[in-house]
Amino acid sequence: MREFLEIGPRGLELAQRALESGQHRVPRATVQLLAPIADPEKVICVGLNYHDHCQEQGVKVPKEPLIFSKFPSAITGPFDDIVHPQDTSELDWEVELAAVIGKRGRHIEEAAALEHVLGFTVANDVSARDWQMRRNGRQWLLGKTFDTFCPLGPAIVTREAVPDVHNLSIRCSVNGQRMQDSNTRHLIFGVPTLVAWVSRFVTLVPGDILLTGTPAGVGVFQKPPVFLKRGDEVQCEIEELGTICNRVV
Amino acid sequence: MREFLEIGPRGLELAQRALESGQHRVPRATVQLLAPIADPEKVICVGLNYHDHCQEQGVKVPKEPLIFSKFPSAITGPFDDIVHPQDTSELDWEVELAAVIGKRGRHIEEAAALEHVLGFTVANDVSARDWQMRRNGRQWLLGKTFDTFCPLGPAIVTREAVPDVHNLSIRCSVNGQRMQDSNTRHLIFGVPTLVAWVSRFVTLVPGDILLTGTPAGVGVFQKPPVFLKRGDEVQCEIEELGTICNRVV
Repeated sequence: MREFLEIGPRGLELAQRALESGQHRVPRATVQLLAPIADPEKVICVGLNYHDHCQEQGVKVPKEPLIFSKFPSAITGPFDDIVHPQDTSELDWEVELAAVIGKRGRHIEEAAALEHVLGFTVANDVSARDWQMRRNGRQWLLGKTFDTFCPLGPAIVTREAVPDVHNLSIRCSVNGQRMQDSNTRHLIFGVPTLVAWVSRFVTLVPGDILLTGTPAGVGVFQKPPVFLKRGDEVQCEIEELGTICNRVV
Repeated sequence: MREFLEIGPRGLELAQRALESGQHRVPRATVQLLAPIADPEKVICVGLNYHDHCQEQGVKVPKEPLIFSKFPSAITGPFDDIVHPQDTSELDWEVELAAVIGKRGRHIEEAAALEHVLGFTVANDVSARDWQMRRNGRQWLLGKTFDTFCPLGPAIVTREAVPDVHNLSIRCSVNGQRMQDSNTRHLIFGVPTLVAWVSRFVTLVPGDILLTGTPAGVGVFQKPPVFLKRGDEVQCEIEELGTICNRVV
């Protein structure tokens, strides 16, 4: 997929033509959907990027985006299992809008930033809160990057197919119970701002994934806190983009 | 190189045979050495891992390794330029021993950890201290991952060729002046401990780079602090592994 994205617009044209031909189709029931990108150079994540998520933990709305990361090894498929590490007792969910970079760039202007975004997908920024918040010198990486901590999918929806990426309902349910229910209009920093911001530091390349942050309703800030246990089923859903569903094992 | 490492021991045998044949050689002066690995899945870094580096900043020796990361896009060649970002006024050096993973593994036992290490190389964990220590919600990532913030090389020295990786002098000079001068015997957590630790969280794969931390003598803890400016030349050297030298531009 990364190589496909590196081809650029011509690649998408070819895919479109293949689609229109009606050939090369396989029944949905016969395939296992994998993550739409499994080997990006970067999985870039944003913290504290919804107003209600800042409120629920009593922190101020940040003045600049707060950037952290996962290793690409955390990525798993849209319907694959989340492996509950023995090493945590505070496993949590975070539904997030993810942008997929389609065009290389550094020092990208905000006005041109969306041109670097090929499309969008749904992510679950699975988090071990003990490791994120109290261990590892409070560097979030380890608590965010256990294997399988980044379910992704079900597909990349191209930018042109999404009328307004900043007006999509975004929801997460655990065992059928609605835990997160917000809208991407409540993002503090929108996708163009985030793309421009990150490109001040690093060269973005096709395939890079940008998780844009989660709204209110994560487990750690419930009263009392609720965490995922083996057997739980987590469903993350974004309007226009689809649904991913992962069992905790 | 990543594909070469994925071949495993057979790949090294073939390289050894090619070397012994005396063919396929090119004069050193005619080639530009690139980073020995430019596209690892992970660049894993360790903070506060030398006793003298903890002392110079007045912090306790950590009880567990402190893990953070750079994006692979930060990697640059052993004699390439470090680009001084306009966005920082506190650019600093950190010479580090880097281990290169040669064998896939998760939950690796400390006793078997060295089998997963193909070899070693020299790294400079270039850091923008303002971004690392005061911006980005104190998550270190951005201050550590500007493009060119990970000079690497000059080569991978295989594990078998290094008599004792925990007894190597390690030094950094800026414009010929010695700033860091220590020995890997002062590492708090040695290479096997670090490999085992990280593999509790993530699957290590061939090509992954593990930067093991820097000794005392970084710029920010000089009195008064000293930072890199354009035109400076930073030389990082580890006994048995060689020297890298990068100009700040």
